Amino acid sequence: MTTSSSETPGTTHGSEAPHRGTGPAGATDRTVRVGIVGASGYTGAELMRLLAGHPNLEIAFATGASQAGTPVGELYPSLAAAYANVAFVPYEPGLADDVELVFCGLPHGSSMELMAELLPRAGKVVDLGADFRLPSAAGYQQWYGDVHTAPELLDQAVFGLTELCRDRVSEASLVANPGCYPTGPSLGLVPFTSAGLVELTGIIVDAASGVSGAGRPPKPNTTFCTVDENFTAYGLLDHRHTAEMELTTGAQVLFTPHLAPMNRGILATSYARPTDDLTTAKALDLLHETYADEPFVVVSEAGPSTKATLGANTVHLTARVDPRTGWLVVISALDNLVKGASGQAIQNANLMLGLREVAGLPTVGLMP
Amino acid sequence: MTTSSSETPGTTHGSEAPHRGTGPAGATDRTVRVGIVGASGYTGAELMRLLAGHPNLEIAFATGASQAGTPVGELYPSLAAAYANVAFVPYEPGLADDVELVFCGLPHGSSMELMAELLPRAGKVVDLGADFRLPSAAGYQQWYGDVHTAPELLDQAVFGLTELCRDRVSEASLVANPGCYPTGPSLGLVPFTSAGLVELTGIIVDAASGVSGAGRPPKPNTTFCTVDENFTAYGLLDHRHTAEMELTTGAQVLFTPHLAPMNRGILATSYARPTDDLTTAKALDLLHETYADEPFVVVSEAGPSTKATLGANTVHLTARVDPRTGWLVVISALDNLVKGASGQAIQNANLMLGLREVAGLPTVGLMP
Amino acid sequence: MTTSSSETPGTTHGSEAPHRGTGPAGATDRTVRVGIVGASGYTGAELMRLLAGHPNLEIAFATGASQAGTPVGELYPSLAAAYANVAFVPYEPGLADDVELVFCGLPHGSSMELMAELLPRAGKVVDLGADFRLPSAAGYQQWYGDVHTAPELLDQAVFGLTELCRDRVSEASLVANPGCYPTGPSLGLVPFTSAGLVELTGIIVDAASGVSGAGRPPKPNTTFCTVDENFTAYGLLDHRHTAEMELTTGAQVLFTPHLAPMNRGILATSYARPTDDLTTAKALDLLHETYADEPFVVVSEAGPSTKATLGANTVHLTARVDPRTGWLVVISALDNLVKGASGQAIQNANLMLGLREVAGLPTVGLMP
Amino acid sequence: MTTSSSETPGTTHGSEAPHRGTGPAGATDRTVRVGIVGASGYTGAELMRLLAGHPNLEIAFATGASQAGTPVGELYPSLAAAYANVAFVPYEPGLADDVELVFCGLPHGSSMELMAELLPRAGKVVDLGADFRLPSAAGYQQWYGDVHTAPELLDQAVFGLTELCRDRVSEASLVANPGCYPTGPSLGLVPFTSAGLVELTGIIVDAASGVSGAGRPPKPNTTFCTVDENFTAYGLLDHRHTAEMELTTGAQVLFTPHLAPMNRGILATSYARPTDDLTTAKALDLLHETYADEPFVVVSEAGPSTKATLGANTVHLTARVDPRTGWLVVISALDNLVKGASGQAIQNANLMLGLREVAGLPTVGLMP
Repeated sequence: MTTSSSETPGTTHGSEAPHRGTGPAGATDRTVRVGIVGASGYTGAELMRLLAGHPNLEIAFATGASQAGTPVGELYPSLAAAYANVAFVPYEPGLADDVELVFCGLPHGSSMELMAELLPRAGKVVDLGADFRLPSAAGYQQWYGDVHTAPELLDQAVFGLTELCRDRVSEASLVANPGCYPTGPSLGLVPFTSAGLVELTGIIVDAASGVSGAGRPPKPNTTFCTVDENFTAYGLLDHRHTAEMELTTGAQVLFTPHLAPMNRGILATSYARPTDDLTTAKALDLLHETYADEPFVVVSEAGPSTKATLGANTVHLTARVDPRTGWLVVISALDNLVKGASGQAIQNANLMLGLREVAGLPTVGLMP
Repeated sequence: MTTSSSETPGTTHGSEAPHRGTGPAGATDRTVRVGIVGASGYTGAELMRLLAGHPNLEIAFATGASQAGTPVGELYPSLAAAYANVAFVPYEPGLADDVELVFCGLPHGSSMELMAELLPRAGKVVDLGADFRLPSAAGYQQWYGDVHTAPELLDQAVFGLTELCRDRVSEASLVANPGCYPTGPSLGLVPFTSAGLVELTGIIVDAASGVSGAGRPPKPNTTFCTVDENFTAYGLLDHRHTAEMELTTGAQVLFTPHLAPMNRGILATSYARPTDDLTTAKALDLLHETYADEPFVVVSEAGPSTKATLGANTVHLTARVDPRTGWLVVISALDNLVKGASGQAIQNANLMLGLREVAGLPTVGLMP
Repeated sequence: MTTSSSETPGTTHGSEAPHRGTGPAGATDRTVRVGIVGASGYTGAELMRLLAGHPNLEIAFATGASQAGTPVGELYPSLAAAYANVAFVPYEPGLADDVELVFCGLPHGSSMELMAELLPRAGKVVDLGADFRLPSAAGYQQWYGDVHTAPELLDQAVFGLTELCRDRVSEASLVANPGCYPTGPSLGLVPFTSAGLVELTGIIVDAASGVSGAGRPPKPNTTFCTVDENFTAYGLLDHRHTAEMELTTGAQVLFTPHLAPMNRGILATSYARPTDDLTTAKALDLLHETYADEPFVVVSEAGPSTKATLGANTVHLTARVDPRTGWLVVISALDNLVKGASGQAIQNANLMLGLREVAGLPTVGLMP
Repeated sequence: MTTSSSETPGTTHGSEAPHRGTGPAGATDRTVRVGIVGASGYTGAELMRLLAGHPNLEIAFATGASQAGTPVGELYPSLAAAYANVAFVPYEPGLADDVELVFCGLPHGSSMELMAELLPRAGKVVDLGADFRLPSAAGYQQWYGDVHTAPELLDQAVFGLTELCRDRVSEASLVANPGCYPTGPSLGLVPFTSAGLVELTGIIVDAASGVSGAGRPPKPNTTFCTVDENFTAYGLLDHRHTAEMELTTGAQVLFTPHLAPMNRGILATSYARPTDDLTTAKALDLLHETYADEPFVVVSEAGPSTKATLGANTVHLTARVDPRTGWLVVISALDNLVKGASGQAIQNANLMLGLREVAGLPTVGLMP
């Protein structure tokens, strides 16, 4: 979607983006039971927040190993009104038998352990963890330092960066949802890398993330007094999401993540070398054309801000070409827990279930 | 609604609270055109955020004096995806002719100037400003220091604290939406004041608010560097919202507002003197009973937090009675822009239009 | 000190307040070796920050049980430049033999265990913990729920709210430094309670604190994502610092602490009932007179803000009397880690060692 | 200064770094009267905060055009205790006659107007504005878009990045203090550029700054509700501080500044292409060697954080070389108002006046 010059206001779009027609007729009427394995973490809680407003998906169970028995509203008072009398339950394979799809929100290394039994029972799985994102067991070992215990499932796993893999996602039974960092810079860079407009080496992605990306468990580096009024770099040279960016762009990427004193949001500023004469106007045109029909991508000349995406499933993009130094600069912003995790997971689930891709996904952010 | 002990999870409520049956059959099918006068401020932007997801209400126009001609997505990038091609327009009375209801988000003193011409044209108005909240022109002059220019309209104006005035709101053509501060402490104290359980003098309401309550225009006291890492009291002894709290409780109230370094949220800690022996258990029971069927009120023993209400139309309440000092302590939390302003305005509009009271109103908050 | 009407600027005071003449001649020349037991927590780190600039005090050792062997600059990079090559050491009684004073920054319950051996070796101790603040073992048991294991030392312990107990502190060998909350409201209320100007029952102290008051160890309730953009009440009815406020004021106090999304600062809004006709002017005059010569107390009609005290050893005070409801309102602000802890500890140590009371203590805050 | 492996603690350095011997014997005893022209902005207020603790410098006057007559403690309550009875005065040239040095904190374009009359009267001036930073009037016009009105003074102006120009600063009468952004990346990159270890084209500096860099006057883009929970890029391709970075490094630089939701601090992540085989170990060694004797530069393998520098005059540096992509990454952190502005201004003034370079400059940061 592209913000264009203003007109006399007519009727507005809803908070849901317009139907992209990817679902069959009557898709809007179905009610589908889904489950969440590993629901007590931030991505799980965000799934519950978004699913509470989904017109088709109904939560059949929400598991939480450490929180089994805890009422949802006790751990997340923000969910108390919508999930009164609902508690986290312990995981057992049988839970998957009476649902059509399972969202898996476990830490990396865990979903590969149960996928072989979970997938056949559930039929369809969206895995928000890292286990099935990389195409090979070798790649997993290189970036995660562990042996992959379910390599036989890697072939059927589809990388779920929806706008780039929509057709494959629609037919997939197992979708590996991208990490929070790769979605923004990938959507910003791929139009250029895939068209051969930039060199495929020496690309730099410099990004800042809110603290929710570090998850719910208390850690010394995520206490309020450590993070507040602080800005710092981390994961220098070898952050694991680098592999996903190289996968989507087909280019060599140096990725430097930073931690910003805010709850949510990732802004990524990416730098690439044009192969031929490129201008800011041409770069913006390419982004506009590429994403003109996308309900969750906003391209504009104005610089993106994470706040414009707070709580929404949108990605905001802009680009510049510097005539002085020659660099192409692409900037992207999104909410790491929505388009960067749980929102995109639901977007993928909608496609896998033949529902409207946009069902239950807000496009308006919370501002201020 | 009351968070109670956990059970095996069944199906979940949606983000909308369950239908309270206040609308006629088929109420869910209608599409109603509404307008917003004064839409460029924070309450106007929040109306647009919430209405983007409303199943029945459709925005016909959004006026903004200083922002006329500005695309909505330019002033509020968070709304760009849902309101592409929509711009703020200048106000003119004729705009109200083809809508069923107008939300008025003007600064105090402004809506009284145009209400006489706006109300007959629109038929129904929810005024988010202060002009019609107090029952008498004298009261307005006492607290706002100005002469009321439309006293003849005061009689038909209904104070729109929905849970306390639901029936009158349903039949009203002009609803004066409460200020951001009074809703929380009023819902917390009224069960006690109306039952004669506390003295009606010397009540203290000590509250802290996020900065969005101060509105969008830049001011020296709301710059980031002034407010961030700062906590301060303001409006000592004579804050205007005191009058609304005294109106709802029928008691004498000393109100002390504080400014907290956050965007949204109001937490109010209220103190009253029991007239007879009261205990924490009795106080909590009274709140539970009073609000058991309310979709937007969460009563729990746990202390409320503003974050649990971020972006939602809920109020969270708890109470304590101190056996040592005898004080009753009632604590309330809400989002000042939702239940404290635009969310409650839509809740009132739903009733005035015969729609489901809960239509388009989220009960889940953004956490983290 | 009182901020008064402006004059042509003359020479300025230094960041240290002017000498109050409490030290002997030549007091400024001495170098005194001191030690810190329990230096790895926030109060310990703040002692190290302030002592780095102290003209007389030199740190001989800094112990940290869990951090023994860790370079100070590794745990607190903010101290790296001043404490290069300094590491935390394990505690052993002998360390105290070659210092003149020890600051004790251990959690409550710990200092009572080692005080009997530490005090004779050190000669003088300022205990920043709670063990020796309350005058009786019974009081300790009532508020802390544990048996006091060193009741025989309680008699010689002096409560170190400097402005209220300066003479006794000067002669003390063991000073119990106040908790972070009591100093502000005590300095604000005592002029009224001690003069019989307010009733000694039903006093309310409603306060908000930054998160550093909860200490360094990560906890679920102090992660960034829990606290940021959140305001909540805690410790309802029975917070332990209540006992210290009742001790200083001789009155019955209901204390309600709140957690604000900031690193430092406590603002307390206190409410008391005048016994006779009191006015805002009289109340402000009393505060001005009481603290006219105090280097660390700023009285002004303007509302205090925590930010004005950030990093400084100052307390800012104001007062109001509401003619409508009759309440006296007293507001105080300070930095919980400076005047609320480590700064006041140094102020007390200066007196105990016969140094200038103001030595090494900044009166200017970090703004913005 | 280099944080090295821990040893048994000995005596500590004070908050002032050790004397670098740049001042004559007895330098510590002098009292020097200085003035501040344009003292009401953030850099002026920070000069007053730091000078309040300076052993040699005494403020004779502090001018503020818009704030003339306002007590310092009214505009900055944080300074109330140290500057009671001091008010901002209107500027007049005669003020400079009885001081030895003037700090000039005016907006760019203003100091060039008065420097011709101010400099001869004051004798020595440290200009915190941009007017005299670039060596040529043409450069000023290129980056600031205005004609330089005092080009004849450009030759005698010395660029005051102290560690890089110490000797020239010591002999200068007019020092142009660097902008807030260039100091960190310049200190990080110059050891590599000056040694020919990196290519002098295509260098990228990607930085994030706290909001105080935007100054005190309220603006739409610096209100709390705009900035809080937000991260965004600005000044794309043509930020004016680029020119200073190219000046110090002698290289071509693309600079992308970002705004982070915090009061203070700048973290810059710089990328350059090694000309020959470079490793992380070699890069760190070079930084260690270069700054081993510098009192305000901390080199460590750990990633710098802005919080470690809060309120201090220190710069923290680290470096990495990525064997996979070949990039050299240099990261720097500082407090934009201290080493990035007023602290470095005092460091320069100390040298110009023959005082100890470190006098009055804290090296410890406020953490938490």
